[in-house]
Amino acid sequence: MIIVLKPLATQKEIEHIMEKVESLGLKPWVSAGIERTIIGVIGEEDILRSLPLEGFPGVERVVSILKPYKLASRDYKNEPSKIDVGGGIVIGGEKIAVIAGPCSVESREMLLDVAEKVKKSGAVMLRGGAFKPRTSPYSFQGLGEDGLKYMAEARERTGLLLVSELMDLRNIDMFLRYVDVIQIGARNMQNYDLLKEVGKTRKPVLIKRGMANTIKELLMSAEYVLSGGNEKVILCERGIRTFEDLTRFTLDLNAVPAIKSVSHLPVVVDPSHGTGKWGLVKAMSLASIACGADGLMVEVHSNPEEAFSDGDQSLLPSVFEDLMKDASRVASSVSRTV
Amino acid sequence: MIIVLKPLATQKEIEHIMEKVESLGLKPWVSAGIERTIIGVIGEEDILRSLPLEGFPGVERVVSILKPYKLASRDYKNEPSKIDVGGGIVIGGEKIAVIAGPCSVESREMLLDVAEKVKKSGAVMLRGGAFKPRTSPYSFQGLGEDGLKYMAEARERTGLLLVSELMDLRNIDMFLRYVDVIQIGARNMQNYDLLKEVGKTRKPVLIKRGMANTIKELLMSAEYVLSGGNEKVILCERGIRTFEDLTRFTLDLNAVPAIKSVSHLPVVVDPSHGTGKWGLVKAMSLASIACGADGLMVEVHSNPEEAFSDGDQSLLPSVFEDLMKDASRVASSVSRTV
Amino acid sequence: MIIVLKPLATQKEIEHIMEKVESLGLKPWVSAGIERTIIGVIGEEDILRSLPLEGFPGVERVVSILKPYKLASRDYKNEPSKIDVGGGIVIGGEKIAVIAGPCSVESREMLLDVAEKVKKSGAVMLRGGAFKPRTSPYSFQGLGEDGLKYMAEARERTGLLLVSELMDLRNIDMFLRYVDVIQIGARNMQNYDLLKEVGKTRKPVLIKRGMANTIKELLMSAEYVLSGGNEKVILCERGIRTFEDLTRFTLDLNAVPAIKSVSHLPVVVDPSHGTGKWGLVKAMSLASIACGADGLMVEVHSNPEEAFSDGDQSLLPSVFEDLMKDASRVASSVSRTV
Amino acid sequence: MIIVLKPLATQKEIEHIMEKVESLGLKPWVSAGIERTIIGVIGEEDILRSLPLEGFPGVERVVSILKPYKLASRDYKNEPSKIDVGGGIVIGGEKIAVIAGPCSVESREMLLDVAEKVKKSGAVMLRGGAFKPRTSPYSFQGLGEDGLKYMAEARERTGLLLVSELMDLRNIDMFLRYVDVIQIGARNMQNYDLLKEVGKTRKPVLIKRGMANTIKELLMSAEYVLSGGNEKVILCERGIRTFEDLTRFTLDLNAVPAIKSVSHLPVVVDPSHGTGKWGLVKAMSLASIACGADGLMVEVHSNPEEAFSDGDQSLLPSVFEDLMKDASRVASSVSRTV
Repeated sequence: MIIVLKPLATQKEIEHIMEKVESLGLKPWVSAGIERTIIGVIGEEDILRSLPLEGFPGVERVVSILKPYKLASRDYKNEPSKIDVGGGIVIGGEKIAVIAGPCSVESREMLLDVAEKVKKSGAVMLRGGAFKPRTSPYSFQGLGEDGLKYMAEARERTGLLLVSELMDLRNIDMFLRYVDVIQIGARNMQNYDLLKEVGKTRKPVLIKRGMANTIKELLMSAEYVLSGGNEKVILCERGIRTFEDLTRFTLDLNAVPAIKSVSHLPVVVDPSHGTGKWGLVKAMSLASIACGADGLMVEVHSNPEEAFSDGDQSLLPSVFEDLMKDASRVASSVSRTV
Repeated sequence: MIIVLKPLATQKEIEHIMEKVESLGLKPWVSAGIERTIIGVIGEEDILRSLPLEGFPGVERVVSILKPYKLASRDYKNEPSKIDVGGGIVIGGEKIAVIAGPCSVESREMLLDVAEKVKKSGAVMLRGGAFKPRTSPYSFQGLGEDGLKYMAEARERTGLLLVSELMDLRNIDMFLRYVDVIQIGARNMQNYDLLKEVGKTRKPVLIKRGMANTIKELLMSAEYVLSGGNEKVILCERGIRTFEDLTRFTLDLNAVPAIKSVSHLPVVVDPSHGTGKWGLVKAMSLASIACGADGLMVEVHSNPEEAFSDGDQSLLPSVFEDLMKDASRVASSVSRTV
Repeated sequence: MIIVLKPLATQKEIEHIMEKVESLGLKPWVSAGIERTIIGVIGEEDILRSLPLEGFPGVERVVSILKPYKLASRDYKNEPSKIDVGGGIVIGGEKIAVIAGPCSVESREMLLDVAEKVKKSGAVMLRGGAFKPRTSPYSFQGLGEDGLKYMAEARERTGLLLVSELMDLRNIDMFLRYVDVIQIGARNMQNYDLLKEVGKTRKPVLIKRGMANTIKELLMSAEYVLSGGNEKVILCERGIRTFEDLTRFTLDLNAVPAIKSVSHLPVVVDPSHGTGKWGLVKAMSLASIACGADGLMVEVHSNPEEAFSDGDQSLLPSVFEDLMKDASRVASSVSRTV
Repeated sequence: MIIVLKPLATQKEIEHIMEKVESLGLKPWVSAGIERTIIGVIGEEDILRSLPLEGFPGVERVVSILKPYKLASRDYKNEPSKIDVGGGIVIGGEKIAVIAGPCSVESREMLLDVAEKVKKSGAVMLRGGAFKPRTSPYSFQGLGEDGLKYMAEARERTGLLLVSELMDLRNIDMFLRYVDVIQIGARNMQNYDLLKEVGKTRKPVLIKRGMANTIKELLMSAEYVLSGGNEKVILCERGIRTFEDLTRFTLDLNAVPAIKSVSHLPVVVDPSHGTGKWGLVKAMSLASIACGADGLMVEVHSNPEEAFSDGDQSLLPSVFEDLMKDASRVASSVSRTV
C-alpha cells in the first residue's frame, strides 16, 4: 500500500502514521520526493485496510497495490476455471453453455413447452424464476415452491439442468433440493448473508453483477462464496445502469475480456436483461460469443405477449431457434461450439 | 397509458392491441396523427403494466401517465407526513432530527462514550451497525446481538432512540425488541422479502436509497412497506454512484426537494456515506438542511483512526459538536431547528 | 405531444394551456381520466417544443410522441444508408470498413510505416490526429498541417483514404483539401458551430458519440449535418462514461443494433478509445462485427511504447494483423467481409 | 509515479522499464514485495506521463502520485483566490456573487426588463446567451452580436456586469469588447483551442463543468487557461449526467467543498441548469450557499412561458426576489452576504 502525504505533512504526522502501521506488525518505508513524500507498506494489505488511513492527519490519498480479492484472481489461479455443474455440463470450456427459459415460471404447461423447445434448439440449461424480485408490490411475485417443482419435472423430461434465483435465506434448503445452479440476482449481489450461506454449500452459484457494481465488487462477491469453500462460482454480466435510456440497461460486454484478464472464473452474459429489448437480444448474444463469453442466459417464452414479467425482452421459441443457428456459426468462427 | 405505434403499424396490429387491452376490462381509444397513431388507455395502469406492450408487433413505445407508486405519492396524501418514532421524536416536522453514532458498534465502552457525546451536542437518535454489510469477506462483520444490547444500554443512559440496519430476515424479531427504527440499507433497498416483512410490522422504517436506484424506485420500495400497512416510512438519501471519483459517492441533494415535490414522506440525508470523506461532511450537512432535509444521519466515532469501518468518513465528537452549532444557525435561517 | 396534468389542475389552467397551444396553430384535445387529465396535441412537435410546457401551472409532465430528429430517422428513410467515401470505399454495405492508424501523427516515417503495414493487413482507411485534443496543456498537441501532409503522402503510397479530426473551424479549408472523411471528435459532438459548418460541405463526416451523450443526442448532432444538406454522415460509438473504472470508458455495443433500429445511418466502432486498453481491443472488435458494426476504427502504432499519446491502447502492427485474420472469420460468420 | 508489476513480471521486463524511465532523465527505484514488485519514480510526473507505461510488458497498473494540474492546485497557492471581475465585484470573497438573467437574449425589451428587476433584487451580474448551443438544429440559435449589444445597454442602465458564453473562436474579439466575463459552456469544457485562446486574454473566464467531466478534468481545463497566463478563472458546477431522470441533471454540490479542498479557485453554482426544474432552484440555491459556493448563476425570465429556451427552469422575477431574501438569511448563517 502506498500512503501519499500532503505537501505540508509534518514530521510528527509521518511518525504517527509509521507507528500505527508498525503496531499492526507491518514494515513501512518512507520515500521523500521533491513534491510529495510517500510511505510504502510491504505485506498484507488486508490488515492495513482496517486502518482508515485517508482520515489520518497529513494523508492525502492511499493507493492499494494488491487486489482486494484473492481466490477469484489470476494471481491465485492462472488458468481459466471449468465449473462442472453436473450432467456432463461444464461452464468455462470450449462449449458455450446456453441457458434459456422464461423470466418467471408462470404455469406447468408453459414451462414444459418452453423447456422442450429450447432443448431442441440447443440449450443445455433451463432458467426460470420461482420467487421474483419485482419493483412493484402490485406485480406477480412468483409461484414459489410450485415453480421449482415444475422446473424439476422439466428437467426430468428434457435433461436440461436448472438455474433459479434464491432471494430469501429461509428457502436455501428448498433450492438445494431442486436446482442445479443457484442464482444470486443483481439486486442481491451484495447481500452478504446470502453469499456466505451459499458459500457454505457445494452447489454451483451464478452471481449476477449488480446494476451499479464494478467488476471489482463482483469479484469481491465471488470472494465471499469462494472463501466459504465453494469453488463453483460463475459470474454473469447483465447490464449496468448508465444515463443511456434507449436501452433498459447498458450491457457491458467489455466486462467479459476485462474479467478474464484478472480472474479465472467463467463469465456468462444475459443479453435479455442487459438490453431490455427482445429486438437487440440476438445481436448482443452473437457479440457476447465473439468477445469470449462462456455462456448465454436468454429469456424465452412461448407467448411473450402473455408473460407475467419481462415479456418485452423475451424471445419466441422460433426466434431463439434462429439465434442458436447464428450463434453456432459465430462460435465456430472463434473456435468454440454452442 | 399511451401506446405509441410505429409509422407503419398495420390495422391488424392495432386491432390486436385493442383486443388485448379490452380483454383486461379496459377501454382504449385511438388517435391517428399525421406522423404517428397512438392508443390511449383509461383506467388502472397497474393492470396494463402486466402486458409487455413494448414487445407487441407495431408498438414503438409505451408511456405511463400515472406514477407506479400510490401510497407514497402526493396524490394519495398531499401534506407532508410526520413520523412519530417514539420518545417524543417526530421526523418530518419543524425540528430536524439528527441521528449520530459510529458506523459499527465496536465495543460497549466506545458506544456509550459516543452516545453521551452526541447526545450532549444535540443528537436525538443513535445509529450503529450490529450486523455489517462489508464488501470484503475478510473485514469485520459486526458484533451481532451484543451490539444491539450495547445500543439498548446507551438508550437507557442517554434517552437517544436507536436506529440499526436489518439485513437478514431471520433477525427481525431481535430487531423489533431492541431498536426504535429499523434501517433498510442501500444494498437491500430492493430486497423485497425484507421490505414485505418490515411492512407487516408497525415499527418505523428508514429506507436508504440504493446507490444505483432512481428516486422512483426508492418510492416503489417505500410502497412495499406502506402497502403492508406500515405507514411509518422515512426515506434516506445517501449518495448515488456516478463517474466522479474524488468523492466516494455523489450525494444527490436534488433528491430532497425532488422527493418532496412528489411524495409526502420525510427525507433524511446521510452525508457521511454520501461523500465518504469526513472533511466534506459539515458542508454537506449544512446544505442538506438548507434544501429542506428532515434529518441528518452522521457518523461519529470517539477515535476514527481506530474505527473498524468507515473511519475515513467519521467525525470526532468535537467536530460533530462544531457541526451542530453551525447546523443550528442554518436551520434557523430556514425557519427550523435542530 | 401528451401533456399530463396534475391531479388538482384547475379548469382555468387547462384553458390557459389550450389557448397557448392553439395560438401556435395546433389543435389540442383533452382526455379526462379518473386519476389524471391529459392534453394531446396533434401536429408538428417542433413548434410545441418551443413552449416550456413543464413550467406551466397545472402541468405535471410532458411526453414527446415524435422523435426530435427527422432526417436521421428510419421514418425518413427506411433502408440503411451506404456512404460512398470515395476510392470505391462504401461504409454501410456488406464489407466492413476497417480504419487503422496511430492516435497522433508523430512523424512522417512512423506514419508511412504504419500505413503500409495496416494496408497490408486489410485496412481501407488511415486514421491519424494532426491536431490533438489533450486533457493536459502540457501534453503533445499535434503536428498541425504537417501531420495532414504526411497523411496525404501516405494515401498516395498506399491508396488508404484519410480520416482526421477537425476541432477548430479556422482549419476547415485545410481539412477539405487533405482528408477524405472529417472526424468530429467526442468532445466536440455538441459543438454546433462545427457541425453546421461541416453540414455545408459535401465531405463525408464521421461523428463520434460524446462520452456523456445519449444515442438520441448523437442522432440530433447528425441531424445538424444532414439538415445542412450533407447526407454523408457516419456515426461512431467510442465508449461512454460510467462508474466502471477497470476500463477507461464503457464501450456501448448495444448502441450498434439500437441505432440501427431507429436510424438508417451506418455505425463504426472504436474499441481502442472505447476500452482504453490494448489487451481488450481484439475481443471488442470481434464483438462489434458480430453485433452489426459497419466499420472498425483501431489505433495501431509501430512502437506503442514510444507513442506520444494513447500508447496504452494502441496495437502493434503484428497484433493488428492477427486481429484482422480473426475479424475476417467472424465477419464471414455473419455474412459480411472485412 | 508508482508502477505496479504483474506477479510474473520477468527481470528482463523490469530492466526494460527501468531503462526507459532512466532515458527520460528520471531515477527509478525498485521495491520487491512478497506479492508484487513496484517501481517508483521520483521527479517530474509530466515527463513520465508521455510514456504509455500501462502498455509495457510486465506492467499491471500505473499510479500517479502527483496531481496532473499544478497552477489550479492548492499546492501552488494555498489561500483561496479572489477574482476581481471589475466594477468592484470580486468572486471568492465574503460576498456571494449572484448572476441572474435569461437563458437567451430574446429581445432588447425583455432583457432590459429582467436586468432592472434582478438588479433590484440584489444580483450583481447579468447572464444571457447571444449565441446558443442548442441540441436541435431546428431551435432558436440566438441573436448573435445584437444580443451582446442589448446586454451592453443593460449594463449601462443597471451597472450589472455581463457574462455570456463564447462558443466560436471567430467571435473572441467581439466578446472581449462586450462582456466582463467570458463563459466557457459545459459542452465546450474540453474544447482546448477555445481554452487556449481565452488563456491568452486577461478577461475573467467562467468555466462550466461538462456534464460528463470529473472535477479533476475541470481543473485540467482551468489549467489550460491559467497556463496561458490568465489567472482570472472561476469554476462553475452545473450538474452532471447520471441515471436519475426525475431531475434533468444531477447538480453535484459535493463538488463545491471537494474543489475547495484541492484548488484555490472560486466556485459558482448554476442550479437552473443543474436541476432543469424551476421548482427546485430555490432549495438548491440555498444549499449551494450553505456548502460554500462563491456565487450563484440563476435563470430569470420576465415570462418563462414565452421563453425561447429553458423556460422550464427559469424563475419569474418575483420568485427570484423571494429567493434572494432567503439566500440572504442563509448566507448570513454561514457568515457571508449576498
